[in-house]
Parts: sequence; C-alpha cells; structure tokens
Amino acid sequence: MEDHIIFDRRRMVLDLLDQRALPLREERIVCARLNEVIEAIANLTVRGAPAIGVAAAWGCALAAREAGEAGEAWSDRLERDLERLKAARPTAVNLGWAVERMRGLWRAQAPRSPEELVNLWLDEAAALQAGDNAANRAMGDFGAALLEDGDTVLTHCNAGALATAGWGTALGVIRSAVAQGKKIRVISDETRPVLQGARLTCFELHKDGIPVLAACDNAAGLLMQKGMVDKVITGADRIAANGDTANKIGTYTVALLAREHGIPFYIAAPLSTIDPAAPNGDYIPIEKRDGAEVAWIGDRRILPEGVEALNYAFDVTPARLITAIITEKGVLRPPYAASIAAALGL
Amino acid sequence: MEDHIIFDRRRMVLDLLDQRALPLREERIVCARLNEVIEAIANLTVRGAPAIGVAAAWGCALAAREAGEAGEAWSDRLERDLERLKAARPTAVNLGWAVERMRGLWRAQAPRSPEELVNLWLDEAAALQAGDNAANRAMGDFGAALLEDGDTVLTHCNAGALATAGWGTALGVIRSAVAQGKKIRVISDETRPVLQGARLTCFELHKDGIPVLAACDNAAGLLMQKGMVDKVITGADRIAANGDTANKIGTYTVALLAREHGIPFYIAAPLSTIDPAAPNGDYIPIEKRDGAEVAWIGDRRILPEGVEALNYAFDVTPARLITAIITEKGVLRPPYAASIAAALGL
Repeated sequence: MEDHIIFDRRRMVLDLLDQRALPLREERIVCARLNEVIEAIANLTVRGAPAIGVAAAWGCALAAREAGEAGEAWSDRLERDLERLKAARPTAVNLGWAVERMRGLWRAQAPRSPEELVNLWLDEAAALQAGDNAANRAMGDFGAALLEDGDTVLTHCNAGALATAGWGTALGVIRSAVAQGKKIRVISDETRPVLQGARLTCFELHKDGIPVLAACDNAAGLLMQKGMVDKVITGADRIAANGDTANKIGTYTVALLAREHGIPFYIAAPLSTIDPAAPNGDYIPIEKRDGAEVAWIGDRRILPEGVEALNYAFDVTPARLITAIITEKGVLRPPYAASIAAALGL
Repeated sequence: MEDHIIFDRRRMVLDLLDQRALPLREERIVCARLNEVIEAIANLTVRGAPAIGVAAAWGCALAAREAGEAGEAWSDRLERDLERLKAARPTAVNLGWAVERMRGLWRAQAPRSPEELVNLWLDEAAALQAGDNAANRAMGDFGAALLEDGDTVLTHCNAGALATAGWGTALGVIRSAVAQGKKIRVISDETRPVLQGARLTCFELHKDGIPVLAACDNAAGLLMQKGMVDKVITGADRIAANGDTANKIGTYTVALLAREHGIPFYIAAPLSTIDPAAPNGDYIPIEKRDGAEVAWIGDRRILPEGVEALNYAFDVTPARLITAIITEKGVLRPPYAASIAAALGL
C-alpha cells in the first residue's frame, strides 16, 4: 500500500489519505496548519491509535513553526497549542504519548529558537514514524507464531496499515503470518458506526491479496457457534496497567463471545498504547461522538426524525478476557500487571 | 399506528405497508396475486414472524382463487402453490404454521369448489389476524408484570406492531407496561444489516410517544457495563421444543451479554412460534441471504469491489440464556421442555 501519512519537508505540509472516503475514493487531504491536523484527527481523516500518534508528531512541528511566526511569546503559545492537539481525541493514549515525547525532547535540548525546534521535531517525527513501522514488524514476527496455517482470524475495526505508520498491529500480525507462507483467511466485522472494518480492513487486505470476508458485527456469535473462527485479533487504543484494554466499540462483546467459545482473543499493540498512569479500565476516558454518525450512513438517514442515537466510540475489554497482548517486545501473558511492568521496564 | 396489513375483500387484494421504505417514506404495496405475496415476504416488504404468518394466510386465499381460474386440476395446483408460499422464507415457523392451519381447514371442511374454499379461507385469515392481535394483548399483560416503573429495556430488531398484526410481541409487552402507567425507556439496537431496529422499532415507538434511543449493535456491551440496561426483551422466529430460540442475527450475542451482566433476558412470542417438531436449535434452518444486504446501505456501497459479505439472517440463543418466554398463555420458565409442552397441551 502507498503511504497514507506523508510529510513533505520542502513544502512543510502533512499529506494524509482521507480514510473517510475509502473504499470508494482514494483522496488526500493536505494540512499546512496545526488546526488542520487537529481537525483531521477529530473528523477521522486519519484514525487508529498509532497513526494518530504519528500524525500528531508531525503536527507538533507545524505548531512550532506557527508559534515562531507569532513572535515573542512563542513558547507559551506552543504549550497551549500542544494541549489543544492532545485534546483532539480522548481515548487513544498514543496521541498524548507522541506529544509528550516531542515536549520531552524540547525540554531536554532547549533549542534557542522556534526554527531550531522545528528541525528537531521534524527529525523526531520521522524517527517516531519509522519506529512505529519497526515496532509493527517486530509485533508481526512475535504474533505470527500464534497463528497456524489454515486459520480463520476474526478482527474488529481496522488495526492495519491505515491505523499505523504502514504495516499494522492486528493486521500486521496477519501480514507477517502470510509472509511466512501460512494461509490465513480473515473475517472482518464491518464495525458500525464508522464501518472501519468494512471500508478499511477489507480495502487494505483485498489490495494485498489476503482473503477477507466481511460480516455484520451481529454475526460474530453465529460464526463462532458454527466453528468458523479460530482466533480473534484486534488492536487497542489504550491499555491500562492491569491489561484492561480500550478499543473500538464492540470489542468487549467479541472478547466475551470468544471466551464463551474457547477461542483465543489477542490484542496487538505497541508499548506506546500502554498507559501506566491508568491502573485499570475505569481510568480510561471513553469518547462520546456525535449521534449523527449512527443516524446517517452517507447521505441516507436511517433513524426517524426526532430519535437520537447513543454513540460511544470505544469500550473496555477486561484483562481476564484477553489471552495475550502482542507487543514489539514480545507476547505478554497474564497476570498483565507483572508482564506489562516488565515490558515497560518499570 | 395505521394497520400495516390490510386485506380488501371487495378488490381481493392484500395491501401492505412497504417496510423497506421506512422510516423515510410511508408507501404501500398492493398484492393481487400469490406470487406478489411470496415476493413481498421474500424481499422484506412485510417481515416479522407473526406478520409473515398473517400475510401468508391472506396469500392462501389469493392462491385458492388463482387455482380456481386454472380449472380442472385446481387442487393439485393449489397444493403446489401452498408449498411455494411456505418456502418464501425458511426460519420463521409462523409461515408454515399459518399455511398448515389453512390446509387443515381445507381438509376438514372439504369444500366442493375453489370459490367455496376462497370464502372459507378469507374468514380464516381474518380470524388468524384477529387472533394474533388478541395473543399480543394477552402477552402484553403477562409480560408487563415483569417490567418495573423506570426500567430501561433494550430490544434487538423489531418485534413490534410492524412485526405482528398490530400490537407487537416484545414491543407489545412494553406498550402494555406503558398503558399501565409505567415509565419505560427503550434502547433499540439498530440491527444490521437491514436496520429493523433503527428504522422500524424507533419509528413505531416514536410515533406512539414512547421514549426510544438508538444505538449500534456494538454498543450493547458498553451500555450494560455502564448499568444503563435493566431488562432485555426480543421477539422470536422459531422456538424449539427445548426453548432454544432462533431470532434476528445478533440476538445470541445480546443474550450472552445479558447473562454476563445479570440482566434478565426475555423472549416474547405467540405459541405459533414454537416448533414442537424441532427438538432443539440444531433443527432450526438458518436463512442465508444475499451479501448485498451487507455490502450496500441504500445506494452506497460500503465494501470494496471484489470483497464478499457473509449474511446469515438469524442465530439461535440457547435456552440456558433465556430467563423466561412470554406467551399469550403465560410466562414460561425453565425447564422449557416441560413448560412448553404444558403450554401447547402436549
């Protein structure tokens, strides 16, 4: 797949594949200002926890340049802008993680001018993007060992190339298994309301020639009853210190079904997705989005006028339902409090 | 609500509200021939197990008239037509039940001409429709006792006026509780792929002034985690002799979630939905419909070209997950093999 997050240093713009238009149209959105990056994150032009982190890192560089244009009080302005960027979406911890990594570098190197900071951050954003790719490849290698030739893997939402710098977390594991010569078939939950499974997971797997079937979120139970699912792998937006994992709404349900049917349920996520400050899932903020995402599909309204829709974007899967967490440092097993602390070197 | 199934005896036509166009447009489809009734059942113009039974009963009368027009071998032709009608959809047992009820009357009364049979069947279809209404009211009275003032009830698909002769099974219980003065709030799963929850349940409850919120099917788990659901009630398409219940795809998942959260899970269905010939859920045929119902929403394709969708229309909820089955003869409790046999007088 073509890179979906490209930063052009000559033109100083962040060039994003517009994921809202997929799979029907491949269009790009070019962001020259911080506010455009914040908007692109909030409106799901770019989505997926690791990809949000990468886009935010590039957004920091744009923010530094804009602060420099503002003159004297540039560092105060920049601090405020970083907070605005961090607030673009609440659940994925990779957003705050990326911004704090940039801020940490700023503190450590203490550049004397915004221009100097811009260059420092451009290099750091490039390193962060490359690092996400490398982490995905490592995760893929560790995770692929969990898949057997002939497996059918069910996944929820999109934790693929489009959700990361380019290889994928859950789908990266599948790509790595396929690269090893294993035959893997994927069933992709369509993932209402935004349909990232139907639109994005099916798009990128089909493009790569990996067999994929779509199904309604409602079908997961029946497919497991029929013995059609061997493994489940999803990504994550934030993992608490005890292993409780926030991911796309509906993930908890899939995990509960998997336990009922004795099917392994894996999370694949880089260590940047772990939030050691959250002791458990109760400490993870759950984003509530506009009910219009449920009420409308494209330009078709599916609800009667006057009826509102609840639209929570994430849920928390309790650690007890998670068979293992696949990271770039290896496969973490329960009890997660210990295995997570060890992986983070805490 | 206006009647959605009206038979005009003067014009000899079955006049159906086209449920595919709801909630955007209220349009009617007029069927003058048996084939049009079969098509209306197959393409979901009329859907919902009890409503399919009512429509099929009227369809029998149209079939008898057509057989009469065909002359000599009318009874052979009619037998073949009844089989075609029974095959319009496979899962809802009420379809076969209604046709067999008509056939039984034919055998018992042995009318000497097709004209005589048409009149016999018109009266019987009217009785069947009135009987479904009466059963729904009785079910509503029994079921309403299970709901408390202030309850929030989650329902899946549409088991309302639009799925029956006019009051509803699951929604009939809610209507009856509201009529008793209880304040009930409904959360309606949108129910992909055909969105009967979003389009039909929200439509008819909103029209009746009963508070209803829509949510994606994916949200049920989170809503239960948050303590926002007090009871679950759904309808049924076929209930086996042991209580295993086929209903709209996704119902099994909701039942499993309800058990996990200690929330009562009720089925509301008339006795005509019970199939004593099916010892358990393995004997219930599950309809597999065209993947286009998943791949397209209105005129918008959500899947990439070349990717197929699995589209099973129903799943089976094991009896062990069902708190009680609300019927017009009372509330059946486990063990269902005994309570169902007693209710059927077996």
